[in-house]
Amino acid sequence: MINAFAALEPKGQLTEYSYDPGQLKTHEVEIEVEYCGLCHSDLSMINNEWGFSQYPLVAGHEVVGRISAVGEHVKSLAVGDPVGLGWHSDYCNTCHSCRTGDENLCQQATPTIMSHGGFADKVRANEHAVVKLPAQINMESAGPLFCGGITVFNPLVQFDVKPTDKVAVVGIGGLGHIALKFLNAWGCEVTAFTSSEQKAKEAISLGAHHTLNSKSQGDIEAAANRFDFIISTVNVKLDWNLYLSTLKPKGRLHFVGATLEPLDIGAFSLIGGQKQISGSPVGSPATIAQMLEFAVQHNIEPQVETFDMKDINKAIEHLESGKARYRVVLKRS
Amino acid sequence: MINAFAALEPKGQLTEYSYDPGQLKTHEVEIEVEYCGLCHSDLSMINNEWGFSQYPLVAGHEVVGRISAVGEHVKSLAVGDPVGLGWHSDYCNTCHSCRTGDENLCQQATPTIMSHGGFADKVRANEHAVVKLPAQINMESAGPLFCGGITVFNPLVQFDVKPTDKVAVVGIGGLGHIALKFLNAWGCEVTAFTSSEQKAKEAISLGAHHTLNSKSQGDIEAAANRFDFIISTVNVKLDWNLYLSTLKPKGRLHFVGATLEPLDIGAFSLIGGQKQISGSPVGSPATIAQMLEFAVQHNIEPQVETFDMKDINKAIEHLESGKARYRVVLKRS
Repeated sequence: MINAFAALEPKGQLTEYSYDPGQLKTHEVEIEVEYCGLCHSDLSMINNEWGFSQYPLVAGHEVVGRISAVGEHVKSLAVGDPVGLGWHSDYCNTCHSCRTGDENLCQQATPTIMSHGGFADKVRANEHAVVKLPAQINMESAGPLFCGGITVFNPLVQFDVKPTDKVAVVGIGGLGHIALKFLNAWGCEVTAFTSSEQKAKEAISLGAHHTLNSKSQGDIEAAANRFDFIISTVNVKLDWNLYLSTLKPKGRLHFVGATLEPLDIGAFSLIGGQKQISGSPVGSPATIAQMLEFAVQHNIEPQVETFDMKDINKAIEHLESGKARYRVVLKRS
Repeated sequence: MINAFAALEPKGQLTEYSYDPGQLKTHEVEIEVEYCGLCHSDLSMINNEWGFSQYPLVAGHEVVGRISAVGEHVKSLAVGDPVGLGWHSDYCNTCHSCRTGDENLCQQATPTIMSHGGFADKVRANEHAVVKLPAQINMESAGPLFCGGITVFNPLVQFDVKPTDKVAVVGIGGLGHIALKFLNAWGCEVTAFTSSEQKAKEAISLGAHHTLNSKSQGDIEAAANRFDFIISTVNVKLDWNLYLSTLKPKGRLHFVGATLEPLDIGAFSLIGGQKQISGSPVGSPATIAQMLEFAVQHNIEPQVETFDMKDINKAIEHLESGKARYRVVLKRS
C-alpha cells in the first residue's frame, strides 16, 4: 500500500488516503519520497480548474527521493539512487517527439498526478521519466527544479538564448525567481519587470541587473527595442503589444505562464521587426539532466519554504495566499 | 525631370506628375523603369489606409529596369545593368540589423514610395538596395518578386524551413500563389487552404500537393497535428487557434499578411506543443539575390497580368476588384 494525501473533491481539504499500486511494471521504478514541491498546477488540479481532474486525486509532481524498487527490465536506475520526478511519469516512447528527444511534447505522455503523484510516501513512474540527481545537489530545494525550474530553463535551450542576449523576466514568483538565477548564470544581461520597490530589491538579489516598473507605461516605452528575449511567467492578462515593443528586431516573447484570456497580439507588432511569440511546457528528461548539472555548476537553488508533509493543508493555504517566497516544499518526516 | 504617375489625394485617380530629383547622390543609382508591379500596399498608401501617406505620392516598389546613371562612389552597379528594386530604397547601414545582414529590419530604412517610387520613367535608390537580375530571368514577371515574392521567400530562409517539412499556405492570391511555387521547389509537402473548388484546382496547378477547405471546420479539425509550418498571407481575421491546432509540436504559424484586428491567440494553444507565431517584412538585398537565383534555377515566375503603365488607373481598378490572377505588372511603352 502507498500512503498518500488525496483530494476527494474539488476545493476540499486533502486527507490521508492509501491505495494499492499493484505489481511494479517491468519498466517502472518506485521512489521513496523525501521531498515534494507544491506547485500552482497542483492547486489547479486539486480544484479542477482545468476540468479534467479525477478524484481521489493525489497531486505532487516535484518529487525528490531515492529508488526503493525497480521493475524487472529497468536498467538505468538502481535501488538507493537519489532521483527526481517531474510533471510526466511516462511517455509513449514511439512518437516523433519521443524519438527526437522531445518527450515533454509527447501527446500521449502521462502526467504524474493523473496516476498518483508525490504527496505520498512512495510514487511510481517509468524509468525513462525519472532523472538521477547529481551527488552535490541539495535535495531539500531540488524538487521545484523538476517543474518550475525546467519550465524556465528549457526555453533557453530550445530557443538558443545566447549569453550576449539582453533578456527580461515578467513575473518574479515561483518560476520567475528561478529564471532570474538561470539567466544570470547563462551570461545574459537580465532585467526584471516588477510592480513594487520591494520586489525590485528582491529581483536584484536573485540575479537581475536591472528592474523596470511594469505598472509604468513610461518605463516600458523607454525600454523600446531593448530585449532579445522576454519570458513571461504570469497568468494574468497584460498589454502584450507593449511588451512586444520592448523587443529588438528578431526578438522573442515566450510564455510559460498561461493566461486563459486571449493574447490580443497585433500582427503588425510581429511583422515589422520579425518578432516571435511562443510557449512551452516543462522539458525532456535529457534537458532536466542538463539543468541539474548547470544548477550544481552555478550553485543555483530554488528559494524554498519547507513544511512537514503532514501540514500539507497549511502549505496549500500559504501558497494560495500569494505569500510564498518563492516555492513551497513538503518534507516527509 | 522624372515623369511619374502620382496620387494627389487619398483615393483619387493617379495623374501624370513630373518632379526634379536633383543631383544624383554619390551612392545613388538611377534606374530606367521597364516594368513595375502593382502591389496591395501601393493601394494602401495611395488611399492613406496606414495614416502616414504624403501627397503627391508616387507609389510603385516592384521595379525592374536598367541602370541609367550611377553616383560618383557607386561600385557595385554600372550603367546598363538589369536590376530590380523593392520596398526599401535605402537603409541606415549602421545599425545592428544592417550590420548583420538584416537591412529589411532597419528601423531607419526608407520605403521606396516614401521618396518617389517606380510608377515613373525613372526611379532612384541607394546602390545597396538595388539587386542585379540574373541573366536568365524574365524581366516582365520579375517585378513582383521584389515585394510579394521576397515576403514569402524570406521566412523559409529566416526560420530554416526544411524540405522534409509539411507546410501549408493560407490565402492563395498575390503572395500565396508564389509561396506555393517556392515551397514546392523547396522540396516540401505543400497544402493550400482554399475556400472554393475553383481555387483548389488552381492551387494544385501552382504547386500544392493537397488542398483543405478553410471554410470547413471539419476539414481543419481532421488536419490536427499535421503541419510544421503555416504561412498566412491573408489580411482578414480567421480562427487562428483552429489553425494552430493543425500544427505539429514545435510548429510555426507565420504571418506576412497583416490583419488589423488582434490575433486572439490562446496561450495554451502555444504552450502545450511548444508552438510559435511570428511575422516578417520583405527581405534583405542578399536574400533577394538568393531568391532570384532560386527562382531561375526552378523556373519560378509570378503569374502576372500586364497593363500599359499609361492605363495605371485601370490596373488599380482591376486589382481592387479582387480579380487579379495573381499579380499586376505595369509596362512602360
